[in-house]
Amino acid sequence: MTKSKSKVRHISGKIRLRDVAEMAGVHASTVSRVLNPETRGMVSQDVAERVSQTAESLGYSPDSIAYSLKTRRTLTIGVLIPDLTNPVFPPIIQSMEQTLGDAGYTVILTNTGNQEQRTQVLLEKMIARRVDGIVLATSQRNEDLLSTCESAQLPVVLVNRVAENTSASTVAADEKHGIGLAVTHLAKKGHHRIAHIAGPQTTSTGYGRLHGFKDTMKNNGLEINEDLVFYCDAYSISEGRRGLESLLNGGKQFTAVVAANDMLAIGCYDALKEFDIDCPEQISITGFNDMLFVDKLSPPLTTVHIPHAEMGRQAAKLLLQQITAPYQSPQHLLLPTQLIVRSSTKQK
Amino acid sequence: MTKSKSKVRHISGKIRLRDVAEMAGVHASTVSRVLNPETRGMVSQDVAERVSQTAESLGYSPDSIAYSLKTRRTLTIGVLIPDLTNPVFPPIIQSMEQTLGDAGYTVILTNTGNQEQRTQVLLEKMIARRVDGIVLATSQRNEDLLSTCESAQLPVVLVNRVAENTSASTVAADEKHGIGLAVTHLAKKGHHRIAHIAGPQTTSTGYGRLHGFKDTMKNNGLEINEDLVFYCDAYSISEGRRGLESLLNGGKQFTAVVAANDMLAIGCYDALKEFDIDCPEQISITGFNDMLFVDKLSPPLTTVHIPHAEMGRQAAKLLLQQITAPYQSPQHLLLPTQLIVRSSTKQK
Repeated sequence: MTKSKSKVRHISGKIRLRDVAEMAGVHASTVSRVLNPETRGMVSQDVAERVSQTAESLGYSPDSIAYSLKTRRTLTIGVLIPDLTNPVFPPIIQSMEQTLGDAGYTVILTNTGNQEQRTQVLLEKMIARRVDGIVLATSQRNEDLLSTCESAQLPVVLVNRVAENTSASTVAADEKHGIGLAVTHLAKKGHHRIAHIAGPQTTSTGYGRLHGFKDTMKNNGLEINEDLVFYCDAYSISEGRRGLESLLNGGKQFTAVVAANDMLAIGCYDALKEFDIDCPEQISITGFNDMLFVDKLSPPLTTVHIPHAEMGRQAAKLLLQQITAPYQSPQHLLLPTQLIVRSSTKQK
Repeated sequence: MTKSKSKVRHISGKIRLRDVAEMAGVHASTVSRVLNPETRGMVSQDVAERVSQTAESLGYSPDSIAYSLKTRRTLTIGVLIPDLTNPVFPPIIQSMEQTLGDAGYTVILTNTGNQEQRTQVLLEKMIARRVDGIVLATSQRNEDLLSTCESAQLPVVLVNRVAENTSASTVAADEKHGIGLAVTHLAKKGHHRIAHIAGPQTTSTGYGRLHGFKDTMKNNGLEINEDLVFYCDAYSISEGRRGLESLLNGGKQFTAVVAANDMLAIGCYDALKEFDIDCPEQISITGFNDMLFVDKLSPPLTTVHIPHAEMGRQAAKLLLQQITAPYQSPQHLLLPTQLIVRSSTKQK
């Protein structure tokens, strides 16, 4: 119990967690558990007492625990993501974790699987676990979840997908401009009959990209043919495939496809393969997001790049601002997009 | 306060949450919050009292909350994943979520970024949040995290990466057999000089695949040349690229590469492109995992398939067994693997 007592630095410097551990003859993690009211119950009564007395006798005061007790903060942020299998989210989350981590926060994630009811339940569980803030990447244009956060008085930021007329801060890519870059690129390559595999119209991304598609078609003097627009129920490979199959089965004539995101574009690749149509020789395809791996597809995908890392970083920053100063007006950031031309598009 | 009172079904049927909400004149989520001790503090005192009284007067008893109070369970499982950007994990997690969801549990995830110290902190946070069980996909062969779970008396299952001599249940693919399928495939195609881009030897997957590689080389009468083995520090594209670049810069002669997983194989693709070497014409490449998207790479990757969905399902089942019957002996499941031949391998 008193082993290594001589090693403890009584005079010089600050007493550290490991000094308490050494003196009490326990592992550092045990000290941490004892000093945190939330975890104290995991440690046996006599060990907990010994550690507490040792900490007190050495005058050890752990800053973060004191902070948490004083402010009732848990230093945890909850993040709801709609679909874990969509590689657009991990880089956004990584940079968000980095920025939040630098500020002392850890992130817990849940995968909602794009299911509305489940999302509500998961959000309530997050709140029950006393997260200090929420990042929603799951947002619908009409977002009921926000009222849940509001009534829990919880700071919330929407990222990538945003809600309309929201009182929460938002970070998104400039959808309309971005999809416009893809349309103009195809128009310049001589494509006139361009199909659109649209995303779910309940999301800001699906809605914004459809309208950006139509506006840019018009600006390029191209006819918008509603027959050449397919509305997908989800941003999935299977929906993209179903969309393009439907247009091809319907005998529609087109030489290029603007898919509302990269997952849908990959589904289009599958449909073309099934119909034995070559991309880009017969049909050009564009995506949106520039998610991981699309540069390595066959053919490498021409797509609209969104600044993933910047998106995560800005979402984290806005959330931290809200946590420290809750009564600021919401901010709405629109991040710039960029066309990345690869090999899935070609002169008509 | 008494509005809609007439609508409440006093006699027939069971009183539902929404009946309480209607009678108390609040939203259903408010009732839910008031009746859960963990969230009651979010609601104002007078509303909380009104809701409590209404619930009592109607004889409403929410089953799940009663259950949680009685058993002290939170019906939440914590899952630690090492790298969110590796597409092998999402399908494992999805089926795990499905099985746990069917049993009434929700899953919260954390991304450890393969950082040991961070992983320990994240695990402690999960425990502090009173999860009912833990799934570790982050395991090192020598696993210190397990003692943390043990001292918290928390059920734990290791999935994909497992620890040695562990008292926890484990679910993994048959690494040695799997990598052997890749080596034998290449040997049959006439390759003699086969390089191995090995995974981190601190993980069971990296260790098992290296030894499976060596054993199968021997069984096929092929020479094992230590110069043709590169040890990566992580399962990342950049490490795979660094590995193959190093072998190519060193002037090593080989006609095929067995990469320890698909991320490393993609890094090998990058290195070959840099050196203007064609795959599979000049060098054949195999991966491991058959993760999402590798069938769509250029060229589509020959790899070893692991049963992702089955892995997640079995991990969930073992965890549920442990939660309901904590004192059973641990089980160690080894799931079968399968070679998927695509276009990245060719007759020498």
